[in-house]
Amino acid sequence: MRNFAGKHILSVSQFSRTQLDQIFEVADRMLPYARRQRVTRVLEGAILNNMFFEPSTRTRISFGCAFNLLGGQVRETTGLKTSSLSKGESLYDTAKVISGYSDVIVMRHPMEGSVGQFAKASRVPVVNAGDGSNEHPSQALLDLYTMSKELARFDAKLDGVKVAMIGDLAHGRTVHSLSRLLSLYKNVQFTFVAPPELAMPVEIVEYLIEKGHDVRETASMEEGVHDVDIVYQTRIQEERFSSKEAADKFRGAYRLNHFVYSQFCQPTTVIMHPLPRDSRMEANELDNDLNEHPNLAIFRQTDNGILVRMALFALILGVEDQIENTAREVNWFTGRRFEK
Amino acid sequence: MRNFAGKHILSVSQFSRTQLDQIFEVADRMLPYARRQRVTRVLEGAILNNMFFEPSTRTRISFGCAFNLLGGQVRETTGLKTSSLSKGESLYDTAKVISGYSDVIVMRHPMEGSVGQFAKASRVPVVNAGDGSNEHPSQALLDLYTMSKELARFDAKLDGVKVAMIGDLAHGRTVHSLSRLLSLYKNVQFTFVAPPELAMPVEIVEYLIEKGHDVRETASMEEGVHDVDIVYQTRIQEERFSSKEAADKFRGAYRLNHFVYSQFCQPTTVIMHPLPRDSRMEANELDNDLNEHPNLAIFRQTDNGILVRMALFALILGVEDQIENTAREVNWFTGRRFEK
Amino acid sequence: MRNFAGKHILSVSQFSRTQLDQIFEVADRMLPYARRQRVTRVLEGAILNNMFFEPSTRTRISFGCAFNLLGGQVRETTGLKTSSLSKGESLYDTAKVISGYSDVIVMRHPMEGSVGQFAKASRVPVVNAGDGSNEHPSQALLDLYTMSKELARFDAKLDGVKVAMIGDLAHGRTVHSLSRLLSLYKNVQFTFVAPPELAMPVEIVEYLIEKGHDVRETASMEEGVHDVDIVYQTRIQEERFSSKEAADKFRGAYRLNHFVYSQFCQPTTVIMHPLPRDSRMEANELDNDLNEHPNLAIFRQTDNGILVRMALFALILGVEDQIENTAREVNWFTGRRFEK
Repeated sequence: MRNFAGKHILSVSQFSRTQLDQIFEVADRMLPYARRQRVTRVLEGAILNNMFFEPSTRTRISFGCAFNLLGGQVRETTGLKTSSLSKGESLYDTAKVISGYSDVIVMRHPMEGSVGQFAKASRVPVVNAGDGSNEHPSQALLDLYTMSKELARFDAKLDGVKVAMIGDLAHGRTVHSLSRLLSLYKNVQFTFVAPPELAMPVEIVEYLIEKGHDVRETASMEEGVHDVDIVYQTRIQEERFSSKEAADKFRGAYRLNHFVYSQFCQPTTVIMHPLPRDSRMEANELDNDLNEHPNLAIFRQTDNGILVRMALFALILGVEDQIENTAREVNWFTGRRFEK
Repeated sequence: MRNFAGKHILSVSQFSRTQLDQIFEVADRMLPYARRQRVTRVLEGAILNNMFFEPSTRTRISFGCAFNLLGGQVRETTGLKTSSLSKGESLYDTAKVISGYSDVIVMRHPMEGSVGQFAKASRVPVVNAGDGSNEHPSQALLDLYTMSKELARFDAKLDGVKVAMIGDLAHGRTVHSLSRLLSLYKNVQFTFVAPPELAMPVEIVEYLIEKGHDVRETASMEEGVHDVDIVYQTRIQEERFSSKEAADKFRGAYRLNHFVYSQFCQPTTVIMHPLPRDSRMEANELDNDLNEHPNLAIFRQTDNGILVRMALFALILGVEDQIENTAREVNWFTGRRFEK
Repeated sequence: MRNFAGKHILSVSQFSRTQLDQIFEVADRMLPYARRQRVTRVLEGAILNNMFFEPSTRTRISFGCAFNLLGGQVRETTGLKTSSLSKGESLYDTAKVISGYSDVIVMRHPMEGSVGQFAKASRVPVVNAGDGSNEHPSQALLDLYTMSKELARFDAKLDGVKVAMIGDLAHGRTVHSLSRLLSLYKNVQFTFVAPPELAMPVEIVEYLIEKGHDVRETASMEEGVHDVDIVYQTRIQEERFSSKEAADKFRGAYRLNHFVYSQFCQPTTVIMHPLPRDSRMEANELDNDLNEHPNLAIFRQTDNGILVRMALFALILGVEDQIENTAREVNWFTGRRFEK
C-alpha cells in the first residue's frame, strides 16, 4: 500500500489510474479536516520547506495550509534574487543543504526541469509546484479531482466525460497536464476551443487520439461549449499575440458570461478556471455575473486543492492511515464558514 | 455571550462600550500567557492568514505572535506586487480563495475600504490591520486599553480622563479612531495640540462636543500638556507640509523631552505614542532622555497590543472561555524578561 | 549548570572551553531529533522571532528549523527597507517592542555591532546571526563541532589538530572566529594559505602565537594542504581585489578538486567550506568532482548546524535537560533520508 512513501511528485506522467484513485480516496478522507470539523496532529513535529523561487500567492499558501492542517510546521522562502542560488550556488548544493533541514520540500522555480534536478540531490521527498512552463502536477490533480466531484453531483463520471477547454491552449501547462491525466480515463470527449494560433499542440492531440479519445477542435466558443459536461476556461494572454489587435479580434468570443452560458451551455455544465482570473474590464474572461451560479466550481477547485495537497503530503510521508490517531473535534466557532 | 463569534473587526465604530468592556476583560485574562507564565493550546490546529499588502513590521509580528500564543498556526503574505491581486484578480476572488484556507484572516491593504470589501466575500472572520488612511481598529483598542491600565495605577478611570493629543492630528488615523472610542466614555477632556494646518478635523471635534465632551484646541504644547492625565504624542510628518521650512517652524514646540515633561506635565502624566517614533535628530518627537521614565508607557502599549489581539482572536473564534482548558505552566527560562 | 539560561549569544569571545564542551554535549543529544528518529515538543508555545535585516537563505532556515524541531513557533522578518528601522526607529525601540513579542530573537543585520546594541535593550535572549563583517558565532561553533566529529572518525581530537585555511583570510569573519575558537584547544597547527594581499590579519596571527599555537603562512595551496587533518576552503572574492586580473592570477592555485586533493592531501584529510560555494565555472573554488568523496564534510557541516543551533536554543532557554520529557518516536516515513 505504501507505494507513495518517500516518492517525489514531479510530473503528471508518473501517475497510473490506480494511483489517481488512491490519491483521491485519501483526499476524500481529508474533508472533515479541511472543513474544520476535525483537527488532526498526525504530522506534528514534521517540517515542510516551502521554497518559492517565483511568486505565487495561491499555490504557496495552499501548500502551507495543507501541511499545517496535518499538524506540521512550515518554513518558507520566497524570491530568487535574495537566495544563495543567486550567488552561484548549484541546485545540487541547495538541495543537499535544505533537505537536511526538512521532512518534505515544495518547490517552484522559473527554470524548466529545475525541480527534477533539485529532487535528484534531495534527501527528502520533493513536490513540484511549477517549474517554468513545464509541469505543475498538483494543479492538474486538483482539477481532475474537482471534475470527478462535480460530475458526481449529476451522477456522472470521468469515464465518458465531455470537456471543453477554452483559450490559450498552446502555452498553458495546466491544460496540457490535465489532458494527459484525463487520457487515463475511458472515452473522453475533448473539445479544444482556441484560435488556430493558440491551438492545443499537435503532439498532445495525437496522443489523445492514439489513446482512443474523441478530440474536436474549433475556434468558436458557442460551438465548443454546446453539449459538454465541463467548460474549462483559461485566460487569453495578450502578451503572446503578435499585437494587441491580434488578441483583440478573439476577445469577445472567449468571454464566458451569464448570457453565453445560458444561451449555449447545458443546465448542468460545470464551469472551471485554474485562477487567478483577470477581472479587469479589458480581460474579463469569466464574468462576475456568474459568481452566484451553482455550477461555477472555481472556488470549489481551490478548496479541493487543500484536500489534494493534504493527500499528497500524507501519502509521500506514509501517514495516510494514521490521520485519525490524533484527531479530535474542532473547538472554535466555524459558523461563518458554512453560511451561504 | 458569544456576540463576537464569527464577526469581522473592521472599524472602531462597530463597538459599544459594553463590547469594549468585554474585549478588555478577555485581554486581562491573556496576561499570564503573554507574560510567559502559562501556555495555552486553545487554537491548536487553527490557521491565521496574515495578509500584509503594505509593509508593517510591528503590527504584522504582533498579530502573528498573538495567534501563536493561543496555539494556532500563522501563514504569512507580504507585498502587493508579487501577489495575484497585481495580475488583475479582484478582492472578491482573493477573499473567496484565501478564506477557504483559513480560520481567520488579518489584512492590511493600502486602499481605503479594501478590507471591508474583502471581508464581504470572506467565508471566515477578517480583522482590519489598516486600510489606507481609513481605519486600524486594533491600534485604537490597544491604546484605549493602555490608557485604562495606566490610569488604574493612579486610581483613575477613562470616565473623566483628560487627554492631550499632539502633532499631526489632521491626517493620523490613530488619533481619529482613538477619539471616537474615547467618546463612548463620560466627561472626557480632549486637548488637541496642533498647528492650525494640522488641526483635528472639524467633523470629529463637532462629534465629540455633541457627545458632551470638553474639547480644547491649542497650538502650544506647553499649554496643552499642562494638567492632563495622558499626553499622546504623534509624529510631525514633514512631507505633508508645504515646505520643510513650514514644518520646521513647529519643530521645537513639539519635542517632548525630559525638560518639557518635568516643566509642564503633572508627575502622574502618562506618555504614549503609537510608534514607530522617529529617533533621528531632525525628528525626535519623543526624546530618548525619557526612556527610563516610569510614566513612559510606549512599550507597555506594544505589550498590551498582544493582549488585545489575543482577546480579539479568542472572541471572534468563540474560545474566550476555553483558554484554560489546555493551559499549563511555562517550562522554559523566562528570567531575563522580568529583570528590570 | 544553568550558566547559559537567559544569556545572549553575540560573539565567539564569550565562550570558555568548558562552555564549548557543554554546547557540544547538548548538540550530541539533539541527533535523534534532527535525524527524525524522535520528536520533542519541549518548546511548545515558545516563539522565536527570526529577524533577518540582510538576506540569508541557509542561516535563516537553519535557525527556524532548529526552533521548530524543539517544538517552538517561528515568526520571521526579512528585509531592512520595509521595516520600521527604515523609518528612523532606533535599534533600542525595535528591541523593546519585538522582545515583548518573543521568547528568543535571532538577528542578522548589515551594521557591525548592531546586534549587540539591540541585545542590550532586549528583554529576551538574542542570538547574533551575523552583524556585518563582525561576528557570526553559530557558524564558528558548527564548524568547530564538525571538526571535532570528523576528527573522531579517525580517532583524533581538536587538541593537536592541523588545520589549513584557504582563500580570502583577510576579510572572512568565518575564519577569524573559527581561529579564535580553535585557540582554546591545545597545540593547534594553523596553516593559512592566502596570497599576501589576503593574508590572515596580523593581530589574529599574533594572538594565536601568543596562545602557544604553531602558525604557518604560505601562498601555495599545494604546500599548505600537505599533511593537515582539515582543509577549510573559502571563496576568493573577486570584488575585493584591485582588478579582475589581480584576482585571476591566484585563481588556479586555489581550486580544490579531485586531482589536487589526491595529489597533495592525506587520505584522511577532511574537506570543509562555510557555504555557499560558488559553482560557476569561473569561480569553482571547491570542485563538484569531490561531491561523492567520503571526506567531503560540507553537507555534514550544514546538518551539524541544526544540532548546534538546537543546543544553543535549549541552553539559553534552560530546557536542555527536559528534551526527553515530551519526546516520542517519529511516525512518518523517513526512509529516503537514510538512503545513500
